[in-house]
Amino acid sequence: MEIATTPQRFDTAELATLLAGRWADVRQRVRKSLDENPLPPPEDPGTEAQREHVLAQMQQLATHGVAGLGFPASHGGEGDVGGSTVSLEMLGGNLSLMVKAGVQWGLFGGAVVALGTERHHDRYLTDIMDMSLPGCFAMTETGHGSDVQSLGTTATYDAETGEFVVHTPFEAARKEYIGNAARDGRMAVVFAQLHVGGEQHGVHALMVPIRDEQGVAMPGVSIEDSGRKGGLNGVDNGRLYFDHVRVPREALLNKFGDVAEDGTYSSSIRSRNKRFFTMLGALIRGRISIAGVSGASTKIALEVALRYGEVRRQFENPGTQAETPVLDYLAHQRKLLPALAKSYALHFAQEELVSCLHDLSTAEQVDEWQQRELESRAAGLKALSSWHALHTIQTCREACGGAGYLAENQLTGLRDDIDVFTTFEGDNTVLLQQVAKGLLTNYKDEFEELGTLGMARFVADQFVGAVIERTAARKILQRIADAAPGRDDEDVLFDRGWQLNLFDDREQHVLEGVAKRLRRATSDGADPFEVFNNAQDHVLRAARVHVDRVVLEAFVAAVERCTDPDLAVVLGQLCDLYVLSTVEEDKAWFLEHERISGGRAKAVTEAVNTLCRRLRPHAVSLVEAFGTPRQWITAPIATGAEAARQQEQRTHEQ
Amino acid sequence: MEIATTPQRFDTAELATLLAGRWADVRQRVRKSLDENPLPPPEDPGTEAQREHVLAQMQQLATHGVAGLGFPASHGGEGDVGGSTVSLEMLGGNLSLMVKAGVQWGLFGGAVVALGTERHHDRYLTDIMDMSLPGCFAMTETGHGSDVQSLGTTATYDAETGEFVVHTPFEAARKEYIGNAARDGRMAVVFAQLHVGGEQHGVHALMVPIRDEQGVAMPGVSIEDSGRKGGLNGVDNGRLYFDHVRVPREALLNKFGDVAEDGTYSSSIRSRNKRFFTMLGALIRGRISIAGVSGASTKIALEVALRYGEVRRQFENPGTQAETPVLDYLAHQRKLLPALAKSYALHFAQEELVSCLHDLSTAEQVDEWQQRELESRAAGLKALSSWHALHTIQTCREACGGAGYLAENQLTGLRDDIDVFTTFEGDNTVLLQQVAKGLLTNYKDEFEELGTLGMARFVADQFVGAVIERTAARKILQRIADAAPGRDDEDVLFDRGWQLNLFDDREQHVLEGVAKRLRRATSDGADPFEVFNNAQDHVLRAARVHVDRVVLEAFVAAVERCTDPDLAVVLGQLCDLYVLSTVEEDKAWFLEHERISGGRAKAVTEAVNTLCRRLRPHAVSLVEAFGTPRQWITAPIATGAEAARQQEQRTHEQ
Repeated sequence: MEIATTPQRFDTAELATLLAGRWADVRQRVRKSLDENPLPPPEDPGTEAQREHVLAQMQQLATHGVAGLGFPASHGGEGDVGGSTVSLEMLGGNLSLMVKAGVQWGLFGGAVVALGTERHHDRYLTDIMDMSLPGCFAMTETGHGSDVQSLGTTATYDAETGEFVVHTPFEAARKEYIGNAARDGRMAVVFAQLHVGGEQHGVHALMVPIRDEQGVAMPGVSIEDSGRKGGLNGVDNGRLYFDHVRVPREALLNKFGDVAEDGTYSSSIRSRNKRFFTMLGALIRGRISIAGVSGASTKIALEVALRYGEVRRQFENPGTQAETPVLDYLAHQRKLLPALAKSYALHFAQEELVSCLHDLSTAEQVDEWQQRELESRAAGLKALSSWHALHTIQTCREACGGAGYLAENQLTGLRDDIDVFTTFEGDNTVLLQQVAKGLLTNYKDEFEELGTLGMARFVADQFVGAVIERTAARKILQRIADAAPGRDDEDVLFDRGWQLNLFDDREQHVLEGVAKRLRRATSDGADPFEVFNNAQDHVLRAARVHVDRVVLEAFVAAVERCTDPDLAVVLGQLCDLYVLSTVEEDKAWFLEHERISGGRAKAVTEAVNTLCRRLRPHAVSLVEAFGTPRQWITAPIATGAEAARQQEQRTHEQ
Repeated sequence: MEIATTPQRFDTAELATLLAGRWADVRQRVRKSLDENPLPPPEDPGTEAQREHVLAQMQQLATHGVAGLGFPASHGGEGDVGGSTVSLEMLGGNLSLMVKAGVQWGLFGGAVVALGTERHHDRYLTDIMDMSLPGCFAMTETGHGSDVQSLGTTATYDAETGEFVVHTPFEAARKEYIGNAARDGRMAVVFAQLHVGGEQHGVHALMVPIRDEQGVAMPGVSIEDSGRKGGLNGVDNGRLYFDHVRVPREALLNKFGDVAEDGTYSSSIRSRNKRFFTMLGALIRGRISIAGVSGASTKIALEVALRYGEVRRQFENPGTQAETPVLDYLAHQRKLLPALAKSYALHFAQEELVSCLHDLSTAEQVDEWQQRELESRAAGLKALSSWHALHTIQTCREACGGAGYLAENQLTGLRDDIDVFTTFEGDNTVLLQQVAKGLLTNYKDEFEELGTLGMARFVADQFVGAVIERTAARKILQRIADAAPGRDDEDVLFDRGWQLNLFDDREQHVLEGVAKRLRRATSDGADPFEVFNNAQDHVLRAARVHVDRVVLEAFVAAVERCTDPDLAVVLGQLCDLYVLSTVEEDKAWFLEHERISGGRAKAVTEAVNTLCRRLRPHAVSLVEAFGTPRQWITAPIATGAEAARQQEQRTHEQ
């Protein structure tokens, strides 16, 4: 097996430019604004102090204008939706700050922009941007997190007074985990079931004041602190209860549904389900930011672990009589380098996703298919990126041994904070199931009406094979794929076309398999709920392999964009490592379905080992190129303390 | 595919008895003594308060006599080594307490017992047991954790004064992460390179006072606080530096090596390496306790998640018009039930390991092979149990969604505390490598002398196939294995004999494969370090599949001990689930090596799904049977809060 010679050096500046991508200027701007925004001390100062620290940092971000990036230019913002997402991603070293900023400007502010109309924009946006109106996004309830469509809070229109009455009818309907609620928030976008004249119109959002200027809870509003969490303790999460709280009719964020003074309900979208999903779709930025910042945190953890792995030594090599840097051990490389390769893959996929979001947000007309495709990618990438982050940060922690367990070395804090990213802004398992449903139904209009039950029936009736649509940008990839050699070629593992075809073929096969299975089972007259539930592992796998394909295509496209030949080789090998370690993880499937032979399966493992060895000398350069703001890397083991100790020990021993 | 009908109920009391095992009385005693030993509040009270709380709980344990279990009866203890290990395992709900107790009575006290002689026992043991002498086990250094044989602290004998001079020659040689050091410890067992009359005799341990009665550091001793950690913040870890600290000659724990007044060194063990490994072997209890308590914490997390999964509902089933309990979803079952099955498997393997430790500790004569086998099992089970704990607790956290992220629901705290168990008391990766080395060399005497380099040479020269020894207790298993049907039988997946043979065959094949590979590569004249390093993933796999086999045998033996027929069926199906989910995880290997066909591979996945569905109704009973002390389960979501909310919501909706 031949792998091209790995260049000894490459143009790191070009790599950094490639990685900075379309919003390089925003990255630079945020990096600068963060210069005066240091990390809180690693010693836990207690919840209250953490919250204060994060609030101060938020206010500082607001003065630098970063907050305005995503708001309409008509109201003092910059209308740069993509840039705003990237700016949140840059906060990966301080996830409490990122989440609190995401709540204020992304979710709370974003909801006012996307679900409200001119009257709300005029009244609130300036105050939201400059933090003079801290707010909450009150959607999740204790009883309903994943299934928000079933939430229990009610907003009943009282035509006599022209007001809505917002109410929490039972404990499970209290608003739960609401960021900014426990301490700072003064207003909340409250999602509630809208009742008008005895009729139910589904979930709508209203602006509800929760505290006065002095910070005292408004009449009828009860606020509880959610208490200590596994992480993100700089965010003041709380619970909200409403006891027949009255707000004026104009408090309704009325872009997708409105109530006239006389109590007439109107909406541009007739179907209640479709209306709900359209509202959710308008809030897609939050999920995309979560995917991005998951990547950013992963990069920090990898930088800490790789820098430490390069200088930390353990066990003498009798051949050289020196202790061996731990990153020279294959087992250590295998822990960190495939994770680095996957981080690259996800980085480029994220860049594509943000671009797509940005372009759609500024497009004159967005067709429904594009919007669904965006939502599907956001869901899939959010799930894969947050799990990748959690697993990689944990792996980095273990790779740094006891040193990795000291709070000062950042890894446990990052892990604690990132943990909840796998279940908030959509539980990962639920999100992957949505991705699969979209693929199985090709985003047919019926989609939202279907639910789990109808899905199985729909697939049974109408699914006619997985139609995987391709955008124009994919054509170059198709050319590469078409040029792939036949299966028996020796070095096929490193052929980009073969790799693309392999991922593509797996996706098609799994998707068609699920469809066939659902169709077969349903035609037997079985209970559709049971049918779908029994196939759940299969359905989730369909989503995963779909996202894997999307991510690979983004990585391949980035390699193609590379103009420096040495860099192209290194990046290409990193892409090979991503592909082959992904194949290795799912080797059972490829063998079971005779996509690779036993012999080639062994060659995959050997190739992963070889690529790890080859890329090891570049590991630190590759992780540096991400351009993580320097003040997010404070771990003593990654910033000189370990290197100095090793030096002192060697001097002593000489 | 036919699976025997799963009984609707079974004798839970018999199951509890089976699980309580040989030290049922100790479990009961500790459970009782813990009645007045509640968990600290979930709100983080700050490091100092946490430490105080844990110290108070330690003192309470001491007054209940639990501390004395493992100490010699001649000195006021009970000489029950197995019971003492089980008593630490019972502290799984409060890992700071477990670790601090483990440091004081297991490591510090254990070192005095195992490495010291009568003079040390007489002088110290009573004070250690009743906590009037809090102490430290000062082995690890900043520069050497995994490779403790290379530590840098020196103890130089001064024949003129009859004293040892203990010294920290450079920063990397400071004692790091020493439990009890930052706050409470007054004495430390310090491991240091022994220098006598210009000669080096390797690592030895000495009793060194570090604080006086008033808590002031002794002259020449500097103590630093290790600071905030990712968890276990109730343990006061610290760093120790020694600046030419003098202790009397009698401070040397002199069981395996002594220095006479005139400076003559003597030892019953000539080889320096062998002496070192004999000392380490005498301290094996710590590692076994870690494996046990990892299991205990896993059970707590599973109990919280399963109880919640049973009452928590999300998404309506249109067929029943009721929301579905999340544990009814296949994806949810797949997260939790194979983990429950593996927890059973590890529980029985741990019971065997503790029995083995206990019997060897009371045996008249212990042959070296038995001792090595014990050390190997301890290393392997510690690695697998701590990783299983970390992964399962994290999975439970995610399975409880946002509720799982609240500190009050225990899961994040358990995860934070257990995290470091994967890298302390031996880094898991390093431990598995040791297990593999033992297997490859069949614990030949040369073992400890070999190191990584010699290992490869040794295997190349002498390895003649993996000889897997069997104890007498294994004979019944052999009969089951021999009765296994041929490969083509339809329901072979559920045949215990086939399962045993499958695990056994995999172990043999992998082990022989590694041996061949090392032999081949070394005979090519390659650098042995490189050869071994390039095969490191293969070597680690050998250790893993070995431990899997050992664990399965323990589970099968427990099923065989079952007398209640219904219980035997349920437990047997849990064992099937353990086997088949383990096969599923490693399916690629079985396919690649043609141990199972593509068709059977699919059947394995289907069988895992079916077993999950079958066992789901018993999930809570199965986890309850572990008999976790009730005060370790405080999570509101597992003790009624969620059930009450669901009830209130249903009442409201009617």
